[in-house]
Amino acid sequence: MSVDPPGAALLVIGNEILSGRTRDANVQALGSALGAIGIRLREVRIVEDREASIVAAVDALRTHYDYVFTTGGIGPTHDDITTDAVGAAFGRDVRHDPTAVELLTRYYGPAEATETRLRMARVPVGATLLDNPVSAAPGFRLDNVFVLPGVPRIVQGMLPGVLATLPGGPPIVSRAVTAWVRESDVARELADVQARHPTLDVGSYPFARDGRFGTVLVVRGNDAAAVITASGAIESFLGVRGITFEAGEGSAH
Amino acid sequence: MSVDPPGAALLVIGNEILSGRTRDANVQALGSALGAIGIRLREVRIVEDREASIVAAVDALRTHYDYVFTTGGIGPTHDDITTDAVGAAFGRDVRHDPTAVELLTRYYGPAEATETRLRMARVPVGATLLDNPVSAAPGFRLDNVFVLPGVPRIVQGMLPGVLATLPGGPPIVSRAVTAWVRESDVARELADVQARHPTLDVGSYPFARDGRFGTVLVVRGNDAAAVITASGAIESFLGVRGITFEAGEGSAH
Repeated sequence: MSVDPPGAALLVIGNEILSGRTRDANVQALGSALGAIGIRLREVRIVEDREASIVAAVDALRTHYDYVFTTGGIGPTHDDITTDAVGAAFGRDVRHDPTAVELLTRYYGPAEATETRLRMARVPVGATLLDNPVSAAPGFRLDNVFVLPGVPRIVQGMLPGVLATLPGGPPIVSRAVTAWVRESDVARELADVQARHPTLDVGSYPFARDGRFGTVLVVRGNDAAAVITASGAIESFLGVRGITFEAGEGSAH
Repeated sequence: MSVDPPGAALLVIGNEILSGRTRDANVQALGSALGAIGIRLREVRIVEDREASIVAAVDALRTHYDYVFTTGGIGPTHDDITTDAVGAAFGRDVRHDPTAVELLTRYYGPAEATETRLRMARVPVGATLLDNPVSAAPGFRLDNVFVLPGVPRIVQGMLPGVLATLPGGPPIVSRAVTAWVRESDVARELADVQARHPTLDVGSYPFARDGRFGTVLVVRGNDAAAVITASGAIESFLGVRGITFEAGEGSAH
C-alpha cells in the first residue's frame, strides 16, 4: 500500500560550502539514510553563517516539514552561531546543559575543558541532547529540529542513533534500468509508466560514455511491489523495441 | 577597497539529488566560478521535481538576490518541468523559440528532430537563449534568472559564456592557513582577527589526520590586501605560540 511518506528538510550552514571551498557530503548521506527508514528528504537549503539567514530558514522549514535537520556551525569558534540562531528561531534562551558540560569535561579532561570548549555544551532551553559517538560534543533536538555538526564523518556516526528515535515507515526503494538509448527516444513510454503509477517517481537521467548515449531510468517509492511492476513495464517496452539494457538497484550515473 | 559584492542564489531541481542517488556537483562549481568574478553565492535551495516547489523557490530567490541560477529539469522527459515552472513564476507563456528549434534541428538532423526533442526548444516569452557548447539544447535567461541543465559537464561548459555577460567585480579571494592545533585553542585569537576585519569572512574548519588534530583557518573577501593582512595576523599569532602551520591558497580539508 502506498502512503505519502513523512517529509524532511535539511539546512546546511556554512560559507565554505557556498564558496566552493568544500563540497557538501551531508545531503547525500542524509537523503539515503532517511529514505531507508521511509522518510523523504524534500528540500535542502544552504545558507551563510549569518544569524538572520539561519533563523529565517529554520522558521520556514520547521513549519513546513515533519522533520528539519541542520548541519554545521555548532563548534567552539566565532563562526559557530547555529545554536544561538536556533534558540532565537524558537524564542528560547541558550544555556549550558549540565550533562553536556560533564560529557565534554570527561572527553577533554578537567584542565582542558576550557570556557571556549564548553561553548559546545550550550543548547536552547528545552532541547534534548543527541549523542555524538565520534567526538563527544553533542548535537541537540528541539521540537522537530535536529541540530548536527558539519563534519561528514561525525554526522554519519551520529545518524543511526538519531534516526532510531523516529517512527519508521516502509523504506523508500528504487530500481534503476540503464538503457542504451537517448532519453528523448523513450520519453513517451516513460511518461506513460509515470501516469499509470502516480504514487511513484519515475526519473530519467541521461549520460554519455565512450561516445555512446544512455539513460538511467529510475523508479522510486515506498510501495515495493509497485516499484517492481513499474520497473518491469520499463524493461518490457525496452525489450519490445530491441533496446539493450541492464536492470539493478543502483548503478550510479 | 571593500564593497559588498553582488549576491546570487542557486536553485537545484531534482529528486535524484534529494534521494541521495546522485551527489550534487553544481553548487561547488558555481560557487567557485561566481567568486572568481566577484559575485558571492549566498544561498542554495534543492527542491523536488514539483511545479509548486519550483515556482515558490524561484519567486522567493529572484526578489532577494541579484542573480538566480537554476540547474536541472530542462530535458525532454515528463520529469523535466523547470521551463514551465519558471514561466509560471513570471506569469509568462512558454513557446517554441525559432532559434532554439533551428539549433536542435541542426544538431539532431531534420529526421531526428522529433516533437519530444523539440520540447527542449520551449522557453518563456521574453527569454534570451544561453549557449550550450556541449550538447546544443540551450538554457535561457529571463530577467535575473538563468536556467541551466543539470548535467555537471554541460553546466561547466556553459558557465564561462553565461558569466561573461555579467558585470564583474574584484574577485573574492581566500588564504588558508593549515595549523596543527585544535580550533578551540585558537578561538579567541581568531575571533579577534574577525573583529578587526569585519568585511572579511574568517572561518575555522577542524580536521583529524593520522590521529592528529588540525584546523584550516580561512580568510576570504574581495579586498585582496585585507585578506593578506588578516591571514598574516593569523600566521603571526600561531608563530608566537609556537604552533606549526602551512599557509597557502587552497589545501582542501
